[in-house]
Amino acid sequence: MSDYEQVTYGLSDGVATIKLDRPDSLNAWTGQMATEFRDAVGRAGHDPACRVIVVTGAGRGFCAGADMGGLQGIASAGAASGGEALNPTDVAFPDAPGPDPADDYPGRFGYLYACPKPVIAAINGPCAGIGLILTLYADLRFADEAATFTTAFAARGLIAEHGMAWILPRLIGEAQALDILLTARKFKGAEAARMGLVNAALPGDELMGHVDTLARSMAVRSSPRSMAVMKRQIRKSYHQTFARSLAEADDEMRASFGAPDFSEGVNSFVEKREPRFESL
Amino acid sequence: MSDYEQVTYGLSDGVATIKLDRPDSLNAWTGQMATEFRDAVGRAGHDPACRVIVVTGAGRGFCAGADMGGLQGIASAGAASGGEALNPTDVAFPDAPGPDPADDYPGRFGYLYACPKPVIAAINGPCAGIGLILTLYADLRFADEAATFTTAFAARGLIAEHGMAWILPRLIGEAQALDILLTARKFKGAEAARMGLVNAALPGDELMGHVDTLARSMAVRSSPRSMAVMKRQIRKSYHQTFARSLAEADDEMRASFGAPDFSEGVNSFVEKREPRFESL
Amino acid sequence: MSDYEQVTYGLSDGVATIKLDRPDSLNAWTGQMATEFRDAVGRAGHDPACRVIVVTGAGRGFCAGADMGGLQGIASAGAASGGEALNPTDVAFPDAPGPDPADDYPGRFGYLYACPKPVIAAINGPCAGIGLILTLYADLRFADEAATFTTAFAARGLIAEHGMAWILPRLIGEAQALDILLTARKFKGAEAARMGLVNAALPGDELMGHVDTLARSMAVRSSPRSMAVMKRQIRKSYHQTFARSLAEADDEMRASFGAPDFSEGVNSFVEKREPRFESL
Repeated sequence: MSDYEQVTYGLSDGVATIKLDRPDSLNAWTGQMATEFRDAVGRAGHDPACRVIVVTGAGRGFCAGADMGGLQGIASAGAASGGEALNPTDVAFPDAPGPDPADDYPGRFGYLYACPKPVIAAINGPCAGIGLILTLYADLRFADEAATFTTAFAARGLIAEHGMAWILPRLIGEAQALDILLTARKFKGAEAARMGLVNAALPGDELMGHVDTLARSMAVRSSPRSMAVMKRQIRKSYHQTFARSLAEADDEMRASFGAPDFSEGVNSFVEKREPRFESL
Repeated sequence: MSDYEQVTYGLSDGVATIKLDRPDSLNAWTGQMATEFRDAVGRAGHDPACRVIVVTGAGRGFCAGADMGGLQGIASAGAASGGEALNPTDVAFPDAPGPDPADDYPGRFGYLYACPKPVIAAINGPCAGIGLILTLYADLRFADEAATFTTAFAARGLIAEHGMAWILPRLIGEAQALDILLTARKFKGAEAARMGLVNAALPGDELMGHVDTLARSMAVRSSPRSMAVMKRQIRKSYHQTFARSLAEADDEMRASFGAPDFSEGVNSFVEKREPRFESL
Repeated sequence: MSDYEQVTYGLSDGVATIKLDRPDSLNAWTGQMATEFRDAVGRAGHDPACRVIVVTGAGRGFCAGADMGGLQGIASAGAASGGEALNPTDVAFPDAPGPDPADDYPGRFGYLYACPKPVIAAINGPCAGIGLILTLYADLRFADEAATFTTAFAARGLIAEHGMAWILPRLIGEAQALDILLTARKFKGAEAARMGLVNAALPGDELMGHVDTLARSMAVRSSPRSMAVMKRQIRKSYHQTFARSLAEADDEMRASFGAPDFSEGVNSFVEKREPRFESL
């Protein structure tokens, strides 16, 4: 599948940009968008020409949450129709270094964790509900300082969906997690940066330039192999003892010493030039 | 028990306010206060008219720590008399949605975790030792920016008591936790906010108004059922794998779709009016 | 061993200062430095006259990372020679209160966790690669606000070495951890403080005075016994359930009530004088 209707996909200079594209409804999330977005991430993950993935929204919003028509349907039926944990095996990455981590990452957005390439969310406008959850599965997040955030769930009689109760304390600490969950209040990108929910907030007209510059730099200066291993190390660490994480790091370190990117990394540093790392 | 001598209890607009009330000694903690405070939390937890609990101190202090007379008695006897882990079953909440979590929360203040209603600490003045520990078991904390905090334990030859060694790294990160434990230094509410120990610090004359407004808003706009589930999700997440937390969130999500608060949450949003959520 | 060539060791007023001492190469890390540094930490840990340990760098740097000559040797050989997990038993501390924790802390710098005395890193200049990792094993970190930090690993084709993938999310949260690992970008001490990587950043000419004052204060005002127990409580908490951490804290609390430092802590407080705590 590559003829998307609700997302767009572009690739240049090693950076794949996936844009949620229902601007008339602030890119509200639908079942079709979920399918297309997942396919696009899989495409970027498998394309050797892609080293970094940027996710953003078309128009003036990022993602306003679940499409309200869909929610009303669920509410009137009084039954679940949107919450099945999808099987992530169709976006596994068999060529990534090390064992395939996809099995460790079930759930709606686990394929973003399993993707061996860094995912950067550029939050260009309103970011609510499931739109906010999506960004929690990215590796880095940058926001328009004026973008409005809200978890929304407590205001709808809902709960902390799709793993956010597990992720939020690890991202922003328990106190901030409980704040944004229990109050369901709206807050701006600038506050999101202060609480650590996004890596930085920028003026709206600087956001995309900042993210694009960072993504292109990572595509050249960071070893794709290193980034894939590091993503996996961080996410695995939560389920590991310190000793186990150390032992695996020692194994990965020894493996890295024998890989071409290490020689290239040292040589390019000594020769004061940009590295030419291998693609995944 | 409801005729308290060392705490006061009030309820209005869905908000129960429990005040430590020994102002002549900056509300220093005693065995009687512990018993009364626990009873008051249980009362608020069981009262359907209460949706949010605020804890604060009478007079110019929050809680200066253990009553020094009690500590001197322990020190001269060279034996423990104040540290027994209390059995929390008498403040279990059988009507809370889902399995009763009280068994998971032993210890001096575990009943605050087990309480299905959000607990907000309004730290209006000096907050030390066991007074500081109490606030760590609240869900949200706000402080007078001029309030003085100290863990105090290392300066008394004591250790990180009552679970604070487990809670602090999860609230404020390891570096800040070690700072305030190892140095036992005094710091102000403004710094407590910067380190994430409190959600925000405010000028003293604005603190109670801010907390009261927030609490009343949560009592109307956040589903009591949602808040009870979310509290439990966050606190359980520390002992769960990502996959297990996700699976339980999917179960809770499906249950929420069938509960009245979801219809009311969607309908009130569409109709642009305040929701009328059910009491617990 | 006490005639060091690549580190210096000094002790005054209860504070041992260990200085990395290869200023001509910004104190780049070598095998000899590793051996000497470890010996010096063991010496400080065993000396009853030492209560607090400060680690810093000679000249204008802290530690620029692995000596590039060593790295080039590894790169050209394509094989590991610098990554073996050292057996920490030779720096165990049998006289520390409670069971010896050294077994729980394997790896390159686990002996810093196992050391019963607080370790403060004073980061006076460039801090990169393995130099940065060393500081993560300190208990407190302070930096010159102008000092340059970088993880460096992704830029060399390497991975998150020596436990940093496990430590970083617990120190600074996942988003900041992924930022500094995946981008390998340079950042200053002032930003390190904002992200919580160091406890505070100070003007360069104030750094050592600040750290020295703090260390000397801790050496007098914090019970060595309390600090040893607290270090262990925090680090053990990551592998414990809340209930288990609480139960151990109750045991430690009862033990502290019978120790001389508790009487001295209470008496010195009541008598408004400096305490005279016992040495470890």
